[in-house]
Amino acid sequence: MKITVTKSDLTNAISIVSKAVSTKSTMTILECILIDARGQDIRLLGNDMELGIETVIPGTMEEKGMIAVDAAIFSAIVRKLPEEEVHLNVVGETIGIRCGKARFTIPGRDGRDFTRLPEIDKVDGINVSEYTLRDLINKTIFSISDNDSNKMMTGELLEIQDGFLKLVSLDGHRISIRRVELNGSYNNRRVVIPGKTMSDISKILGGDMEKQVSIFFTPKHVLFEFDSTTVVSRLIDGEYFRIEQMLSSDYETKITVNRKEILDCIDRATLLVKEGDKKPIILSLSEGNVEIKIRTTLGSMDEVVECTRTGRDMMIGFNPKFLVDALRAIDDEEVDIYFVNPKAPCFIRDAGENYNYVVLPVNFTTVD
Amino acid sequence: MKITVTKSDLTNAISIVSKAVSTKSTMTILECILIDARGQDIRLLGNDMELGIETVIPGTMEEKGMIAVDAAIFSAIVRKLPEEEVHLNVVGETIGIRCGKARFTIPGRDGRDFTRLPEIDKVDGINVSEYTLRDLINKTIFSISDNDSNKMMTGELLEIQDGFLKLVSLDGHRISIRRVELNGSYNNRRVVIPGKTMSDISKILGGDMEKQVSIFFTPKHVLFEFDSTTVVSRLIDGEYFRIEQMLSSDYETKITVNRKEILDCIDRATLLVKEGDKKPIILSLSEGNVEIKIRTTLGSMDEVVECTRTGRDMMIGFNPKFLVDALRAIDDEEVDIYFVNPKAPCFIRDAGENYNYVVLPVNFTTVD
Repeated sequence: MKITVTKSDLTNAISIVSKAVSTKSTMTILECILIDARGQDIRLLGNDMELGIETVIPGTMEEKGMIAVDAAIFSAIVRKLPEEEVHLNVVGETIGIRCGKARFTIPGRDGRDFTRLPEIDKVDGINVSEYTLRDLINKTIFSISDNDSNKMMTGELLEIQDGFLKLVSLDGHRISIRRVELNGSYNNRRVVIPGKTMSDISKILGGDMEKQVSIFFTPKHVLFEFDSTTVVSRLIDGEYFRIEQMLSSDYETKITVNRKEILDCIDRATLLVKEGDKKPIILSLSEGNVEIKIRTTLGSMDEVVECTRTGRDMMIGFNPKFLVDALRAIDDEEVDIYFVNPKAPCFIRDAGENYNYVVLPVNFTTVD
Repeated sequence: MKITVTKSDLTNAISIVSKAVSTKSTMTILECILIDARGQDIRLLGNDMELGIETVIPGTMEEKGMIAVDAAIFSAIVRKLPEEEVHLNVVGETIGIRCGKARFTIPGRDGRDFTRLPEIDKVDGINVSEYTLRDLINKTIFSISDNDSNKMMTGELLEIQDGFLKLVSLDGHRISIRRVELNGSYNNRRVVIPGKTMSDISKILGGDMEKQVSIFFTPKHVLFEFDSTTVVSRLIDGEYFRIEQMLSSDYETKITVNRKEILDCIDRATLLVKEGDKKPIILSLSEGNVEIKIRTTLGSMDEVVECTRTGRDMMIGFNPKFLVDALRAIDDEEVDIYFVNPKAPCFIRDAGENYNYVVLPVNFTTVD
């Protein structure tokens, strides 16, 4: 293999496919990037068997071939190269890297040892803009669980229903739901995608409003296609939680409040909560204002935020971090928060149900 | 105590004095900041017994007093406050923090438990600009040793001799020397200042060419005074190394080379050196160019950099990191590097001896 590419194209492609490279594996081939210049294009591929990412880069091919190289060292070398053309030249199982005055030789691995992406028929997919997909992921991903003991909670539900695309994540204390209307009509579908895949995709996506992502499904895999990149991920097996039954539309008290004001206030309260501490903040809802209090071993805070309230007075306790995460994921200037009773979840949702953040309360009578 | 200060003044002062606050100590008072508003000024003070920093902040005093507060929580709260006036109000041993809508109460400690800075007579000191002092520190500090087994190597020598201020650091493999001519005449002096003090000072210093730092000495302490800040540090006890005998001015070979070109090249070579690995780079000095080679388990590199050479051909091996550190600390476009023989240190120094970086070679015949 003998190819020439620009440093910036190569750096960019490496950073994309590296998301699918294992950093510590017993199989060293999983720590490699495959450079494949056997066909018409130059392709880079990373594959940790859960997630595979392939991207095409422009360049010239003098001699076809392929090689797998250790991702960490290849990436470190390429990043330090001058901003010029990079010549890659495979001799046997080593790869020569030449750029400006720099000349490296590093060992490679036979490309045939590398696992390719599974073949997936690109039929019956959906289209959504890069911007929308990234936005939906970023505004829900934070409430997946990082505890592997319940695998399903470490994934995100992607649901297509009646022309809407919906993402859902939950961790046992809260649920984050975002949805957007699709252009065109699609079959209904429910799949659970690993949180790491979603998070990696949101980092790779350019976020262009005009550019489309196509998403295709098989019973075991999901495929995302955008720009010159293809991402294939395994799905999480099994039935996702039936969240509909947890979403009440009844409420006793509703407040409408300036989002930034209440966010800043609750965010400050988190300063008084030590890692691992379970101290709640207590919201006292009354006519015209919410009083927000917290008292921990580090100190106490007591603030008042103005609001419009309908319904009855209520005192209810929360883990402040969960409210902060939800309020940060909303763009609206004013938010509506619905309360049922001090033992039932509250809902932060908009009228059109484009978002619905559900947060379970904390029992505070026993902790203060 | 009842005082009002702006958030930005307070944040700035906290970040300065926090450099002298212990983060983990068995004495919790060392983890505190003292707020002292008993005199004419409002002062913040941090003191971990090795290093003490006091800074004055503008503000209004309604009621005199003082209190010590946990630096971590106080600093976290203040950073999150809105950009407005901060009202601090001590009641008993708690301190109320009020700013905009934010209202916190945190526990404090009796200010009398706090250790004040030692009294130091401000006589017989030296003056140097903030810029110069910071520059001298930044360009020598990297070669102190972080190994406590030789205490003297963890400090920097500050020497005043014949109207020059000189800083020296060394770690057994290299020596970094920088000097600058002082305005005015001063007594000769040699003190060894802990590396942490020097590094903290370089971070606090504004770096203004026009502003002066005054430095005063006692047999046990050094005091730096600049802006509204006073830094007092213990000195390291004992005699510093006699470095003069290590600085040969004889040489066999001298090369003059573009600094950035050789720096970039050696810097790339460090990519092939794993942490803890002792693989040297090998410089082959010949007429008109230096060939730079490295071969490790990760791969190999072989580059040529043009140079002007006087003297004889030589092959010599180095730890590439040490050359990189020295070359980064130099601003000149071209550098002169002097070699004696493959077992003796090389010197990167300018004609005026404003800088002299000494690097010991590595024996490479046994490693390749």
